[in-house]
Amino acid sequence: MQTSWDHRYAHRTTGMTSSAIRELLKVTAQPDIISFGGGFPAAELFPIEQVKAACDKILTENGAKALQYSQTEGYAPLRELIAQNVCKYGIKVTPDNVLITTGSQQTLDFLGRIFVNRGDRILTECPTYLGALQAWNVYGAEYETVDLDDDGMKIDMLEQVINTNIKFMYVLPNFHNPAGVTLSLERRRRLVELADHYGVPIVEDDPYGQLRFEGEHLPTLVDLDDELRDPDHVSYRGNVIYTSTYSKILAPGLRIGWVIAPEEVIRKMVMAKQGADLQSSTFDQFLAYELASSDWLKDHIANIRKVYRERRDAMLQAFEDFMPEGTTWTRPQGGLFLWLTLPEGCNTLELFPIAIEEKVAYVPGASFYPKGGPSNTMRLNFSACNPETIRIGVERLSRMVKRCMK
Amino acid sequence: MQTSWDHRYAHRTTGMTSSAIRELLKVTAQPDIISFGGGFPAAELFPIEQVKAACDKILTENGAKALQYSQTEGYAPLRELIAQNVCKYGIKVTPDNVLITTGSQQTLDFLGRIFVNRGDRILTECPTYLGALQAWNVYGAEYETVDLDDDGMKIDMLEQVINTNIKFMYVLPNFHNPAGVTLSLERRRRLVELADHYGVPIVEDDPYGQLRFEGEHLPTLVDLDDELRDPDHVSYRGNVIYTSTYSKILAPGLRIGWVIAPEEVIRKMVMAKQGADLQSSTFDQFLAYELASSDWLKDHIANIRKVYRERRDAMLQAFEDFMPEGTTWTRPQGGLFLWLTLPEGCNTLELFPIAIEEKVAYVPGASFYPKGGPSNTMRLNFSACNPETIRIGVERLSRMVKRCMK
Repeated sequence: MQTSWDHRYAHRTTGMTSSAIRELLKVTAQPDIISFGGGFPAAELFPIEQVKAACDKILTENGAKALQYSQTEGYAPLRELIAQNVCKYGIKVTPDNVLITTGSQQTLDFLGRIFVNRGDRILTECPTYLGALQAWNVYGAEYETVDLDDDGMKIDMLEQVINTNIKFMYVLPNFHNPAGVTLSLERRRRLVELADHYGVPIVEDDPYGQLRFEGEHLPTLVDLDDELRDPDHVSYRGNVIYTSTYSKILAPGLRIGWVIAPEEVIRKMVMAKQGADLQSSTFDQFLAYELASSDWLKDHIANIRKVYRERRDAMLQAFEDFMPEGTTWTRPQGGLFLWLTLPEGCNTLELFPIAIEEKVAYVPGASFYPKGGPSNTMRLNFSACNPETIRIGVERLSRMVKRCMK
Repeated sequence: MQTSWDHRYAHRTTGMTSSAIRELLKVTAQPDIISFGGGFPAAELFPIEQVKAACDKILTENGAKALQYSQTEGYAPLRELIAQNVCKYGIKVTPDNVLITTGSQQTLDFLGRIFVNRGDRILTECPTYLGALQAWNVYGAEYETVDLDDDGMKIDMLEQVINTNIKFMYVLPNFHNPAGVTLSLERRRRLVELADHYGVPIVEDDPYGQLRFEGEHLPTLVDLDDELRDPDHVSYRGNVIYTSTYSKILAPGLRIGWVIAPEEVIRKMVMAKQGADLQSSTFDQFLAYELASSDWLKDHIANIRKVYRERRDAMLQAFEDFMPEGTTWTRPQGGLFLWLTLPEGCNTLELFPIAIEEKVAYVPGASFYPKGGPSNTMRLNFSACNPETIRIGVERLSRMVKRCMK
């Protein structure tokens, strides 16, 4: 008797959906399609020679350790480096506040795993990062949402919906994925105060924080939260769980992310990680340490900023030149994405086959709304294509929009 | 108001425990302790020069791809290679039957995620791999157990407890972790027939299958199950979910494992993986492919077998020479572990501090029993130390046993 698999799956699998983005990546692998769909960093900027030198150094000096099992918490020098980098902003963080993860997606999974009972409510921005919804739906999360404007999460709306029953708030303050907007300093302060007032934790997802093209660096939420705490504390004990990654400044293929949180939360996550994958790749952690501790990294990040800025500018200029009246877009100060809103009545999911006909791709906005939302939006990535290609792609996209408006 | 974290954790965290093994690793990091506690492959056999050459080749020829995001399912040539290797044994497996995971621990997590509702029963051997219990406890699994003898799972006992309500059976047929025993061919056939009769899937965990020191290779359960199926099928559609890893034949630090299953199960696992970590390290997958597809691997595995056999023999000989009457042990035909049973009344958990006094370490057996079991057992690893060190370590261990027997 062959197993009837369909009758065996756990209830939680009904909350599992395949990521629209990951599925789209497959369609858009055709070489003649210009894809603004993925979230790919520019591969031509990958520090291949530096990675090569780092591999050689690690394997020559420390090969046996770099290929062996290691601690679940992560490679100690890497945790130390991450803690030191955060401390530069005045937050008191020790390596015990740091866990290395298999990309920051894994942090999102662990948050679901350790915090979310079926029916628990998570407060998110609207739209929000699709991967977070995928991570949490499986644990039965439900959502409260707060809309975004050009200054990020609308704090007056937050004040109306926040309550002590919210399990945590999920916020992408810098160069939001998918919306491309940045949370203003004033709102950051108010958000941290509200979290403190209600005792509701904040999950701060900051993959792009170092990729600012213009304007001043704004303090992170974990930084502002730390200012509220007893100045004599030694390790971080506040309300914010902060996650970031080397994917956008080194290489996503290494899958090295991290999370900063109070020690007791880190300890719970370490237990989650033992069951999930024992540890992240030792070799990739050694590589990330070698690359991230080198002097060269600062210039490398400066170069990424410069190149992405040119690409963002190319996309904004092409919008100005090609997009029909009634189309609007955000103007990100950094990161990889912006958000395009088509005239009402244009359904970006239904238009997708026409986009493919025009040889251009994007991610329809509907996927990013936890409880549904307008159908005339899309996320566009500007980091993966050069300015000339971006211009051609936007022109193709404008043809699709014009066809829809007829 | 600071978050009261204790009141926020999900119910499932009560099922999370820190792995005794991973915690012990910390104690035994002191250099003067001889540790039989971990599950470490011999680091001195790691193919460091080959890894170095592979890094160089990959980064020179294919650097941008090897450092970029890639498909959740895994690197296509690696999936193809794994499918081909399995096909050598006559099983019809296609790359669509293969998912690459972040170590085979991740397969165990995904099995819990896609199959286990709170209260569901999993049938395991007793003792069984601790990491599997850690992976499944968090999903609320409960356990039926079947004892082991020198020929593996006692099939007559299985016949008494198996029923259609078992979610799946978890079996380590080759060189069992922790028990070191191997399931006989006759029992393998009967197990597969029983699974077929009741329509209950088998999860076959086979990390050490290629590390046989003596005796004939026995067909895997997935192989035997496939023989029951329609000979005209193209891809595997049977009752077995098979998982293995490159950790024991290449290097565990790369965290590259895989699972073979019917396509529909793989599709569910791919969705689980999107939420869990998006994908395993692209770079480590390229490395695993480069190393595992080379001609050199066969000789490398032959060498591992030879060295581990010497170490097993050294441990068995030292037992003969030093252990007091009333102590018994298994004689593994391969793998990394054996199982020691002390005279009754010796509690290996309580004795652990005395072992540390004697400068030797092991894993107390109690952790490996899903529903509790005898307290006088322990798991010993023989792959990580050379024969001389093993002999010294066993003598120290025998002193501990003698102190307990006084």
